[in-house]
Amino acid sequence: MRILITGAAGMIGVKLARHIASIGRLGDREVSALQLTDVVMPAAPPGFSGAVDATVADLSLPGVAAGLIAKRPDVIFHLAAVVSGEAEADFEKGYRVNLDATRELFEAVRREGLAAPYRPRVVFSSSLAVFGTPLPDTIEDDFLTAPLTSYGTQKAMGELLVNDLSRRNIFDGVTIRLPNICVRPGKPNKAASGFFSSIIREPLSGAEAILPVADDVRGWHASPRAAVAFLAHAAAIDLSSLGTRRALNMPGLSVSVGEQLEALRAVAGDAPLKLIRRQPDPTVARIVGGWPRAFRPVRAQALGFRAEASFQDIIRIYMQDELAD
Amino acid sequence: MRILITGAAGMIGVKLARHIASIGRLGDREVSALQLTDVVMPAAPPGFSGAVDATVADLSLPGVAAGLIAKRPDVIFHLAAVVSGEAEADFEKGYRVNLDATRELFEAVRREGLAAPYRPRVVFSSSLAVFGTPLPDTIEDDFLTAPLTSYGTQKAMGELLVNDLSRRNIFDGVTIRLPNICVRPGKPNKAASGFFSSIIREPLSGAEAILPVADDVRGWHASPRAAVAFLAHAAAIDLSSLGTRRALNMPGLSVSVGEQLEALRAVAGDAPLKLIRRQPDPTVARIVGGWPRAFRPVRAQALGFRAEASFQDIIRIYMQDELAD
Repeated sequence: MRILITGAAGMIGVKLARHIASIGRLGDREVSALQLTDVVMPAAPPGFSGAVDATVADLSLPGVAAGLIAKRPDVIFHLAAVVSGEAEADFEKGYRVNLDATRELFEAVRREGLAAPYRPRVVFSSSLAVFGTPLPDTIEDDFLTAPLTSYGTQKAMGELLVNDLSRRNIFDGVTIRLPNICVRPGKPNKAASGFFSSIIREPLSGAEAILPVADDVRGWHASPRAAVAFLAHAAAIDLSSLGTRRALNMPGLSVSVGEQLEALRAVAGDAPLKLIRRQPDPTVARIVGGWPRAFRPVRAQALGFRAEASFQDIIRIYMQDELAD
Repeated sequence: MRILITGAAGMIGVKLARHIASIGRLGDREVSALQLTDVVMPAAPPGFSGAVDATVADLSLPGVAAGLIAKRPDVIFHLAAVVSGEAEADFEKGYRVNLDATRELFEAVRREGLAAPYRPRVVFSSSLAVFGTPLPDTIEDDFLTAPLTSYGTQKAMGELLVNDLSRRNIFDGVTIRLPNICVRPGKPNKAASGFFSSIIREPLSGAEAILPVADDVRGWHASPRAAVAFLAHAAAIDLSSLGTRRALNMPGLSVSVGEQLEALRAVAGDAPLKLIRRQPDPTVARIVGGWPRAFRPVRAQALGFRAEASFQDIIRIYMQDELAD
């Protein structure tokens, strides 16, 4: 089968391509070709025996999506997006990339199907940003989407398209609402959520990390490895039981910052904890206070989606995947 | 103040323009100019002392919305839409008119505001079609949108845009989710909801009406006069208490078909009832069975939106407004 990944140069896109390349299959079907596309050139994953077609492309431009879809990928992972902060700062870019490009891609699938039958699996990555306050302590599967950012709005609109176009049999789609991805590799960034990862990542590397919120602040976390597993699983399973509601809240771990730090101590001893510098930031605290803290993802669990069982596991996965060599 | 109405040749658009023309104001502000636009030429409402600018326009075409917005209307009623059945039958037209044209209009407002400060009131008409089964007996204000049609999807996407663009102060917007409009004037049509009106309208004119569902089927109804009042009220009130959730379920009456017929008997005697022909249609029954039956519209009521108090009132309004001359 042929796989298309948009946003293939992003953190999750790279890991997803490597995962598929390493096992050579999705579910019980062999993967013969990988189409990788992003606004910067995606790297070909090592060890893949099939064909790799990597391209630099702006999906929001006319004809670009049609060119990718003309190769009739069996599975389309649509991960391409500008992140929350950028979509908030640049209105036009956010709507162009996160909404227009999504519509262009889906429209290309529809038009391809007008020529000859075509109904690929579409896996659309979405976010907890589709939810907004007031939030219950635990969010159920049928909780309303009420985004508080343009990014969340664009994702919620994409989710609606996935539902409608799946209902119309234009494709067989599913939306994966990813938890906060933790521990995110790389440098500290300016994202309000950055501290969830940096309070683990920096101390493990002997560097100081700033903690801008109280220890009782709670998040809904899964590892990058779990995120990749969610997407790969979503590409391979029978979705017919979902009916017309194709957006799935993913499993995760609801842990407080204090519990994150206790897990860090259990895995790596006392020394890293000394590198945490508490520096309260009311702005960050306010933003994070509006985020989901826990879910009861019954539908996703029934379909076999699984996240980590402890935050210690999340830390160990980071150490294995990012610090091992 | 200057008012723009899109979809001004439609049933609600015509009545709204006449209402504004007849009272000459919205809230406590005088209306000096009416911009009326639709895909067919809207009629100038009688008795209006201000300027009327009626145009035939397709808002989905580039530059059309910008031309309308260049006149800087203070209030924009965005009613233009293709209806549910047509949006379902014609995928491209539905998305073009109901989504693309909405985006064009909102984008024209944003661009107008880049040149010089501009923050009009936008009143977006939406529909119960944003909701989908499974539904509770009574729908609360924070119930999720899960449309089962392309029309409902397009309206739900428009609602998200209204929220986001209002949050960003591009305009001061509100979405009015209209109940089923009853008694709808004119000829019987093919809409699955048509019988709700025709079982009143046809017998009052001495014509037979077909009732395709059981007497216990329940709907959420308001008169055309109430719908116009909702829109006019939405244009005039302070919306700041709504925060970022700008979509309002409107008040209405939850009545069964049996209660509709009892009201008809009370208003017009036994004779009209003899013109009801029961002819069960499982397809119509299935479609209607997926529609909302009742709401608890707390937020709208707190803002002063009011619907009819009885279905007899709804029938009398029809007789006054449509049969009086």
